[in-house]
Amino acid sequence: MVTPWEVKGEIDYDKLIDRFGTERVEESLLKRIQAVAGELHPLLTRGIFYSHRDMDWILDEYKRGNRFFLYTGRGPSSQVHVGHMLPWVFTKWLQDVMDVRLYFQITDDEKFLFRDFDRLAESTRVGYENVLDIIALGFDPERTRVIMDSKLIRRMYPLALRVARRITFSTVKAVFGFTPSSNVGEIFYTSIQAVPCFLESVRKGRNVPCLIPCGIDQDPHFRIARDVAPQLGYFKPALIHNKLVPSLRGMQAKMSASDPTSAIFVTDEAETAREHVMDAMTGGGATVEEHRKYGGKPEICPVYHYYAYFFEWDDDYLKEIYATCRSGSRLCGDCKAELADKVVSFLDRHQEKREEARDRVQEFMLTEEELPEHEPA
Amino acid sequence: MVTPWEVKGEIDYDKLIDRFGTERVEESLLKRIQAVAGELHPLLTRGIFYSHRDMDWILDEYKRGNRFFLYTGRGPSSQVHVGHMLPWVFTKWLQDVMDVRLYFQITDDEKFLFRDFDRLAESTRVGYENVLDIIALGFDPERTRVIMDSKLIRRMYPLALRVARRITFSTVKAVFGFTPSSNVGEIFYTSIQAVPCFLESVRKGRNVPCLIPCGIDQDPHFRIARDVAPQLGYFKPALIHNKLVPSLRGMQAKMSASDPTSAIFVTDEAETAREHVMDAMTGGGATVEEHRKYGGKPEICPVYHYYAYFFEWDDDYLKEIYATCRSGSRLCGDCKAELADKVVSFLDRHQEKREEARDRVQEFMLTEEELPEHEPA
Repeated sequence: MVTPWEVKGEIDYDKLIDRFGTERVEESLLKRIQAVAGELHPLLTRGIFYSHRDMDWILDEYKRGNRFFLYTGRGPSSQVHVGHMLPWVFTKWLQDVMDVRLYFQITDDEKFLFRDFDRLAESTRVGYENVLDIIALGFDPERTRVIMDSKLIRRMYPLALRVARRITFSTVKAVFGFTPSSNVGEIFYTSIQAVPCFLESVRKGRNVPCLIPCGIDQDPHFRIARDVAPQLGYFKPALIHNKLVPSLRGMQAKMSASDPTSAIFVTDEAETAREHVMDAMTGGGATVEEHRKYGGKPEICPVYHYYAYFFEWDDDYLKEIYATCRSGSRLCGDCKAELADKVVSFLDRHQEKREEARDRVQEFMLTEEELPEHEPA
Repeated sequence: MVTPWEVKGEIDYDKLIDRFGTERVEESLLKRIQAVAGELHPLLTRGIFYSHRDMDWILDEYKRGNRFFLYTGRGPSSQVHVGHMLPWVFTKWLQDVMDVRLYFQITDDEKFLFRDFDRLAESTRVGYENVLDIIALGFDPERTRVIMDSKLIRRMYPLALRVARRITFSTVKAVFGFTPSSNVGEIFYTSIQAVPCFLESVRKGRNVPCLIPCGIDQDPHFRIARDVAPQLGYFKPALIHNKLVPSLRGMQAKMSASDPTSAIFVTDEAETAREHVMDAMTGGGATVEEHRKYGGKPEICPVYHYYAYFFEWDDDYLKEIYATCRSGSRLCGDCKAELADKVVSFLDRHQEKREEARDRVQEFMLTEEELPEHEPA
């Protein structure tokens, strides 16, 4: 089961492509991206960004000078963990190599409506905390505008209403699994998540292609946005989807804020994070002897995935980790200790930049003044 | 059938009291209102404001110094007709005799969501046109704040979300008759109409009783708001309901913007309005001879109702109209001509004041600055 609010059980990513009706990121698409970008991010070559909608069209438009903008987001339910950051890292790479604008939506309203918090103000507060992590990643303030839903709602509401008029209860029921006991805010909410798809077109007064890098679990929202877009006179947003970072506790689920030992939170104390890594499940043998004899299984090992998804961008070294694990010469304890060092060093750097970001929040926030007052006809 | 968006067929007002579960405005309540207000408005003594919820509590609180505030509104689907103005006239009387504040909500978002307009901007524009009529009625700008939903949404949204969390699809389905093909904006909307019930409490930082004078057809919204209020820590809003002004075309429905001859629009040309009155259905005999012989039926006569609901506040004279109609001495043609003169004279005065109001709109509009940024805990 995969919805934007719940991911249960082991995910069959191939099946999701069929079920959601997306396209696989094929070798031919990678070549086209490389031709335009001049390079390929490891998250592409490693098959982590593995699914898409309309990427070919995005590249066609880009090549003829019609530059897209990026849109990604964050539901501020808690502090940020590495799984949240994965699409942001990729988004930053896209922004840099393609030289494009980015809208970054913080859905404080969503997290209040879905009962992550008892007070909207608390959701907003966590949202601003999360903005620090976005800034710390090094996004360019000139080309990056962060949307705090509850603060920008005066400009978003007219567009959200236009979207909402085109979405029936039947649709959100089918797409998200809502029931008659779902609250009317939850039911309405996807209209708000659709808004940034069209915001650059509203700002510019002409149609601008939109590309959304996001976890595959967020696709249902944008399937709806894509259905509505042509009815409103906008382009359908394109998407490129990543697989979810697994839990340190095993491959069955994505990392979860409700189990802090399952994830590397970017605000964790270095030593806490080290403990979580050292306590992680692995794909290793039951004993050192067995491991040396039969080798490990990196493909089902959360620790290996952490290297591949976030902490080791050197392909040659990653291959060496893989090979020595398979052969049994690399032991799980050593492998975890090495990852823990990388995690600690990432956290040190990130947390320093995160503190520096506190003075720069307003530099990144999209304001009402940057957008026209009313939607076009 | 009576919902906020559709009134079909002849209305049995007694049945509505039972169906909606409201209370009848009894003689004892009128006496209590008179004791506090020093007088009674004819709309009360004539049984036009005939139903209520919690008026006794409102008077109890008022007497012990806990003054209520008023809340009424307008869905800006068109220019205003006399039927819309009826609760406003009563609201103004209440404001004057009770010396209380008023929030006047203009639901431009609602009229866009329910497809009265193709563009929100058009709904907002009509909303501001309607504000002129509110101002022309003579409301005190010191105590009257007009809310344009789309403009004040940044302050309303946090409260609307709190309300929305407490309302399920089942509830709006049962109360409003929504179906799976209703759009998600319609489904969400009642959360917005609930907000002004709590706005004075938010502004003052303490619980303030709210009294809503409105057409009985609007009661369903506030039944929901009343259910939610205690869960949010607010008082349930009290209500006092009026019967709807009938169509000039007969008693079966309220006046309708879709048939301009059915109503007296306050922006009608005087001579157009005169024609509509002269073309009205009456309760008179089929011929002058029959009328003189058997008399008329004022109780089923739209023209008589126009006198009683809006154009003749002198009780003695209204009784005379009634008696001479019943006796057959008052002829329909004369009766309509006299009403037409009253209508024309009202329109002349109103339209003059309406034009003067154009410079004063901002004086009445509630601004973000008048409300705290976030809802209390």
